[in-house]
Amino acid sequence: MRPTGPLHLGHLFGVLGRWAELQDDYRCFYMIADWHGLLSEYEDPGRMREYTRQVVAEWLSLGIDPGRSVIFRQSEVKEHLDLYFILSAITPLPWLERCPTYKEQMNEIKGRDLLTYGFLGYPALQAADILVYRADAVPVGDDQLPHLELTREIARRFNHFYGKVLPLPRALMTKSPRILGLDNRKMSKSYGNFIALADSPETIAKKVAGMITDPARVYRRDPGHPEVCNVYSYYRLLESAGLAAVAEECRSARRGCSECKKQLAAELADFLAPVRESRRHWLEGRRIEEVLEAGAVAARREAGATMEAVFSALGW
Amino acid sequence: MRPTGPLHLGHLFGVLGRWAELQDDYRCFYMIADWHGLLSEYEDPGRMREYTRQVVAEWLSLGIDPGRSVIFRQSEVKEHLDLYFILSAITPLPWLERCPTYKEQMNEIKGRDLLTYGFLGYPALQAADILVYRADAVPVGDDQLPHLELTREIARRFNHFYGKVLPLPRALMTKSPRILGLDNRKMSKSYGNFIALADSPETIAKKVAGMITDPARVYRRDPGHPEVCNVYSYYRLLESAGLAAVAEECRSARRGCSECKKQLAAELADFLAPVRESRRHWLEGRRIEEVLEAGAVAARREAGATMEAVFSALGW
Repeated sequence: MRPTGPLHLGHLFGVLGRWAELQDDYRCFYMIADWHGLLSEYEDPGRMREYTRQVVAEWLSLGIDPGRSVIFRQSEVKEHLDLYFILSAITPLPWLERCPTYKEQMNEIKGRDLLTYGFLGYPALQAADILVYRADAVPVGDDQLPHLELTREIARRFNHFYGKVLPLPRALMTKSPRILGLDNRKMSKSYGNFIALADSPETIAKKVAGMITDPARVYRRDPGHPEVCNVYSYYRLLESAGLAAVAEECRSARRGCSECKKQLAAELADFLAPVRESRRHWLEGRRIEEVLEAGAVAARREAGATMEAVFSALGW
Repeated sequence: MRPTGPLHLGHLFGVLGRWAELQDDYRCFYMIADWHGLLSEYEDPGRMREYTRQVVAEWLSLGIDPGRSVIFRQSEVKEHLDLYFILSAITPLPWLERCPTYKEQMNEIKGRDLLTYGFLGYPALQAADILVYRADAVPVGDDQLPHLELTREIARRFNHFYGKVLPLPRALMTKSPRILGLDNRKMSKSYGNFIALADSPETIAKKVAGMITDPARVYRRDPGHPEVCNVYSYYRLLESAGLAAVAEECRSARRGCSECKKQLAAELADFLAPVRESRRHWLEGRRIEEVLEAGAVAARREAGATMEAVFSALGW
């Protein structure tokens, strides 16, 4: 994950929600992708430092366990760039130029000039990030499948030249309900339409108060339609105990949108309270730094073994 | 220098001839550019290992002094790729696509598919190679001036974003007589028209015997024209003691091309004998490995100090 902004509900109900579970079945590597972050944040890379601390604290608060898993910063494990460079030497330029998500990303990351050499190569760096751990599997959403396919292509080409060293990783498809942002668009940092995991109850209340509800319900006395209301969809994601009552009271106009939002804000604040509390604990002193230092050592051990095999295959 | 082939007279009478002198006026860094080598030799990178030993041994035989200078392998100093990646994040793609030597190189390096992502970036890697030592000056031939200008452009852009950290290096133009290959084309590994520093007297004799002389001199009795004869140009480069006599005897047809070549071969073998001897000495045991290990330590110290300044400028 790139450390370029705060974690929000979009992350939590997306792929991040399953990350903690994966630890029961796999040895997991969780990476702060600061080199990737630099590719888009090069005009102000200093901000990533604080985001790194926060994102790691939030991972830990959501159950990522430094005792079982490896949590590290990409730039602290030199093997990523070593393998990236080697892969870049064998990756045909058109593979990257034609990468379907390259232009998409260019459009999605707003207000940045991304026509740089480095940005064109980010799928090759991603390939190195995966292959340097000889990963069996990568948890991805379906929008990331083309990247994983490119990683497999690059690994195949490596193995073709130098012998079977890099296993082809498979996709762990994670199906997750999608949460919309406050304005009914996709929840995203760049749209500014998110509720952050770290938001205070006051901030949450203010944000929820601005949410769009059922546009057909003009007056308080009009019956509402929960199935088209984004506020209601949040109750559903929270698996709110009062879910049935909320729907019933909305449809019968016994509940107004304003009180409905206040209740949602309170439930969201309760839902996030343990994460906020745990987050605060992790951010104290040098706890995050210690987790990252231990993680870098473990990551280097694994990546170093791969690179020994890689260099030996190259005859170096 | 890329470790992709043996050193030959073209190197010796080119930029390499001045390398040893530079040590009197500068603290010099001599780099085996194995990452660069990989960009063209990715189909058989194992050969670079032996070439690395040989090239370093030949440098040392020509007076590069590990006591005064830093001699190292690029891939053993991780700071090169760190800075390369950072520079790649700020280098506009068109700067590289339009680099005048990019397509030239593509044509010059024969029999390789160089339409790779890595090869497009080699001027950015070159920039990192120079800037990571905050070099004052770089010895270049005039064909390399565009690269150095690109390095300066990239350094300017870095300093624009992050503050004045990287000094702009200036060119140390080295004018050197050009030596032609055995076939009168530019002496080059890829043309196979070279005399290697390590060639035995027998090999030299065989190669010289095949050289083109004055095409207007058809019969032994015809007078020759030394000024158009490549064999004579070699005598001149060697500053042969018999230079005047060679010219005179050729013009008056008192000397035939065959005996003239035999004499040249003998003088070349004598000229290269001390290099061959010294080279053999350096190749014994682990001498080269020890030089490279000490060089890597010294290079890392210098490059590490630069990267501390770089990361601090980035706010990392």
